[in-house]
Amino acid sequence: MNLKPRRHVLRSQQFRDPVALLDLFEATDRLAKLGNDRESRNTLAKGPLAGAVMYEIFYEPSTRTRFSFWAAAKLLGMEVCSSENAGDFSSAVKGETLEHTIRVLAGQQPNVIVIRHPESGAAQRAAAVVDKYYPGRISIVNAGDGRDQHPTQALLDVYTIWKRLKRVDNLTVVIGGDLANGRTCRSLAYLLSKFDGVQLIFMSPPELSMGEDILTHLKESGVSWRVETDLGAAFRVADVVYWTRIQKERLGDPARFAEFRDTFHVGLEEVSLLRPNAILMHPLPIAGEISPEVDDHPQAAYFEQADNGQFVRAALLMDIFGVSI
Amino acid sequence: MNLKPRRHVLRSQQFRDPVALLDLFEATDRLAKLGNDRESRNTLAKGPLAGAVMYEIFYEPSTRTRFSFWAAAKLLGMEVCSSENAGDFSSAVKGETLEHTIRVLAGQQPNVIVIRHPESGAAQRAAAVVDKYYPGRISIVNAGDGRDQHPTQALLDVYTIWKRLKRVDNLTVVIGGDLANGRTCRSLAYLLSKFDGVQLIFMSPPELSMGEDILTHLKESGVSWRVETDLGAAFRVADVVYWTRIQKERLGDPARFAEFRDTFHVGLEEVSLLRPNAILMHPLPIAGEISPEVDDHPQAAYFEQADNGQFVRAALLMDIFGVSI
Amino acid sequence: MNLKPRRHVLRSQQFRDPVALLDLFEATDRLAKLGNDRESRNTLAKGPLAGAVMYEIFYEPSTRTRFSFWAAAKLLGMEVCSSENAGDFSSAVKGETLEHTIRVLAGQQPNVIVIRHPESGAAQRAAAVVDKYYPGRISIVNAGDGRDQHPTQALLDVYTIWKRLKRVDNLTVVIGGDLANGRTCRSLAYLLSKFDGVQLIFMSPPELSMGEDILTHLKESGVSWRVETDLGAAFRVADVVYWTRIQKERLGDPARFAEFRDTFHVGLEEVSLLRPNAILMHPLPIAGEISPEVDDHPQAAYFEQADNGQFVRAALLMDIFGVSI
Repeated sequence: MNLKPRRHVLRSQQFRDPVALLDLFEATDRLAKLGNDRESRNTLAKGPLAGAVMYEIFYEPSTRTRFSFWAAAKLLGMEVCSSENAGDFSSAVKGETLEHTIRVLAGQQPNVIVIRHPESGAAQRAAAVVDKYYPGRISIVNAGDGRDQHPTQALLDVYTIWKRLKRVDNLTVVIGGDLANGRTCRSLAYLLSKFDGVQLIFMSPPELSMGEDILTHLKESGVSWRVETDLGAAFRVADVVYWTRIQKERLGDPARFAEFRDTFHVGLEEVSLLRPNAILMHPLPIAGEISPEVDDHPQAAYFEQADNGQFVRAALLMDIFGVSI
Repeated sequence: MNLKPRRHVLRSQQFRDPVALLDLFEATDRLAKLGNDRESRNTLAKGPLAGAVMYEIFYEPSTRTRFSFWAAAKLLGMEVCSSENAGDFSSAVKGETLEHTIRVLAGQQPNVIVIRHPESGAAQRAAAVVDKYYPGRISIVNAGDGRDQHPTQALLDVYTIWKRLKRVDNLTVVIGGDLANGRTCRSLAYLLSKFDGVQLIFMSPPELSMGEDILTHLKESGVSWRVETDLGAAFRVADVVYWTRIQKERLGDPARFAEFRDTFHVGLEEVSLLRPNAILMHPLPIAGEISPEVDDHPQAAYFEQADNGQFVRAALLMDIFGVSI
Repeated sequence: MNLKPRRHVLRSQQFRDPVALLDLFEATDRLAKLGNDRESRNTLAKGPLAGAVMYEIFYEPSTRTRFSFWAAAKLLGMEVCSSENAGDFSSAVKGETLEHTIRVLAGQQPNVIVIRHPESGAAQRAAAVVDKYYPGRISIVNAGDGRDQHPTQALLDVYTIWKRLKRVDNLTVVIGGDLANGRTCRSLAYLLSKFDGVQLIFMSPPELSMGEDILTHLKESGVSWRVETDLGAAFRVADVVYWTRIQKERLGDPARFAEFRDTFHVGLEEVSLLRPNAILMHPLPIAGEISPEVDDHPQAAYFEQADNGQFVRAALLMDIFGVSI
C-alpha cells in the first residue's frame, strides 16, 4: 500500500506541540459535523483512506473502545478486521511471543494495527517489530497497554475539555481514583503537561497514588501539582474533575475498599460543590463510584466524552497518514 | 445520520396489524428473489440503506442469529460491527449497567442496535435509553432477551407458515416443549393472536407450562387455546406443530428429564400422524428432540424456517426505516 | 448468487496436477504484486468476486489464519462474516450437530464457508451437507480440522518453497516435530507427493511418528522416504527443513518432553549445518523450538511463509470460482 503513516501512537507525551493538538481538535470538530449528515458521511467514506485496512488486536475486553475505533475507521471508508479476545483465541495460548504475533499480522500488510494488551509496553514492542520489518508502512496505535498508557483516551479527554471549556490552558484539574493502575489518568497527566498554567490535584488511596515517573515528568515540565485527601477541597477549586474507578482487587483488604468506596463516591451533593462551569469527567465504565442521578447533570461530561472518541480517533487516523478533509 | 427509524422491535405483540404483516411478508418474498441473483444483490446493496450502520451486541452466544442479521444488513449494503460475547468481553464484567453500555454505544450513532441478552426486558431497557438520549435516531431490535421474547424469530416463523400454507388465519397450531422458558414460543403465541380463527394447543411438562401473561393475552384477544398431554391427539389435528427443546437443567431431577425426553421426542412415526399439509417447525438448534431422519421429510419446515430469517430481517430493516425496493 | 464454485478445498491430496499448482502459484505472484500497490488493490476489490460472501467458522482459536483468509477475501472485494470461537459461542454448546449448524449457515447462502474444527473430517462432513442441500453453490474450505489436514497451509508452504528455490521437483525435505498430530505436516507430505523426485525425511519422537495412512500414500505414489533420528544428518542433506512444535501434553511424561525439547531444538548452530540454499520453514506459532536468533537468518523462511498466506488464499478463491485477473 502506498499510504505512508507518519507515526505510531504509543504514549500521550509524544503529542508535544499544543498547536498541533488544537489542529487535531479542529479536524475532530469538522469530522463530527460531517458525521452527522448522511450525504457527507458517504462522501467521507470515499476519501483518501477508503479501502485502507485497520486490524484491531484486543488482548483485553473492551466492546466500547473496539467499536469506537471501528466507527472511526468506517467513517473514513476503511476496512476493519477485529479480534475480540486475542489473548484467548490466538497463538498466545500456544506460547507465541507478542513479537512473533505482530510480525505475522504486520506481514499481512494492514495500514494500522490497533492493539490493546494487558502488559505495559506492549504497544512499544509492537512498534519496534514494525519499525524493524515494515518501516514506514504500518502505524501501531496503542488502545491501552497494561498500567501504562491509553493515549487516544487522553486525546478525547483533552478534546472534551477544550470543547466544553473553550481552552486547555490555565486549568485546575482534579484526577481521582486509582492513579497507580489507571492508565487513562497517567496518559491524561502527560498530555495536560503540554499546556500552560495547568495545575493538577491528585486524590487517591495512599497505596494507589500517582507513579513517580509521572511526578518526575510533571516537575521537569514545570507543571504544578499537589495531593489532596479532602474531596470537597479538591472539587471546590477544580475546573475539571477526572474521576476513575477503584478496583476492589487492587486494595487487598475488602474493609479498606469499603472505606474508600465512600470517600471516593460522587453523588449530586459532591457535584454541587463544583464551580458553575466546572465539569465532571470519567473514562467509563462506572461501577458505582458516581451515582446514576449525576448522569444527566449538565456538568457531567462523561458520555459526551465517550461520544467524542469516534471523531477524535478518525481525526487522528487522518493525521497519521497526513491526509485532510 | 438522516435516516429516521420509525420504531424499535421489542416484542412480537407490537405487530398489531395483520395487513401490515402481510405487506412485510410480500417484501420478504421480493428480497428473497433478488437475493438469489447476483446482479440484483449488487443493486440492492447500493439502495437506500447503503452505508447505514448496524451494531450487534450479543451477550449470549448465537452464531446463527448473529450471522442472519449480518446477512440481512449486508443484503441492504449496511455496515456491521459485531460483538460475539459482549457479556464476557465488554465493560459488563467490570460492573457497568446495561443502560450505560447502551448509552455509550448509541453515542457512536449506529442506525440500529441488535441486542441479545440473558435478562428479560433488556431490549426494552435499551430502547428506553435510546428514546431518552437519541430519540428518533436509533432503532433497537430485540434478538432474544431472557425468557421473554424473540420477535424477529416469531416474524420468520409466521412468514414460514404463510409461505407454506398460504394463510395464517384459521389454523390449529401445536406449540410444544419448554413453554415456560422458551422465548420463541412466547413470541409466536403473541404474534399468532393477531390472526383470525387461530387455535393454540400447548404441550409441555406441567412445570414448564405457558406463562399466565400469555394466557391472559390470548383470552383478551379471543384466541382459543387448550393444553394437551397426548402427542398423538395434538399432532392429528394440527396444521402447524412448533416443537422446541426441553433443557435438562430446567427440570431439576434428571429422571424427570429422561421421562419427558421420550414423551416429547418426534420421529418419523410421530410425523406420520400429521395431516398431509401440516408442517413441523422448530426454532433450532435441535439437540435430540427431533430425529435426524425427519430432517428431509417434506413436512419438516425447520431449515426453510431458518433460511427465511435473513430475508424477513432485511424486510424488517427496510420497514423500520420506511424505505422500499 | 450466480457465482458457481468448482470445488471444495478439503485435503491437500486433491491437488493432483502439478501444472495446475504452478498456475496457482503464478496467480499468487500476480496478486502479491497487485496487493502492494494501492491503486491496483482498489481495482482488484471491484473485480469478479466483489460482494461475494465468505463465512469464517472457527471452532478453534487462530487469529493469524482467520485474519489471513479475511485479508485474502478483502483483496478480492468480498464481504466476510466471522466467528472467532464458534465452539463456545454457537449452538454447539447446546448440543447441535455440526451437520445442522452447517446446513443453517449454508442456508444463508454465503459463497464460501471457511471452517476450522477440532475434529478430523469436519470439513468433509460440512462439504457433504453442502453437496446434498446446496450442490454447486457453496465452497467449503478446510482451515484445519483436527489432526487431519490443513490444505491451504500446505499450498502456501509449497508456494514458499517454489518461490525460494525456484522448483519443487527433486527436493529433499525434512519434516520434523509432532508428525502424528501435526496436520500441517500431513498436508504438506500429501502435496509434495505430487512432484517428481521428492525425498522425505521424517524426524519425530517415536510415539509421534508419521501416520500409516500417509506412509502408504507415499509408497503408492512412489515417493522415497526415511526416518532419521540424528538432526545433523537430516539437516546436512536437506533442501527444505519443515519444523514444527511438539506439545508437552502429547508426550504424557514431562521428563520425556524435556528430553525431546533439546533434541528438537533449532538454534543458529543447527542452521549452520544447512546447505547454503536450503531453507528453514515452520507453520508458526513457534513456542521455543526455534531460537529467536534464527528469525532474521537469511535461510529462515517462516515469516515469508506466513506472509504468502494471504495471496495464496486469494489465488485459491479465484481458482475456486474460475475467475482470473
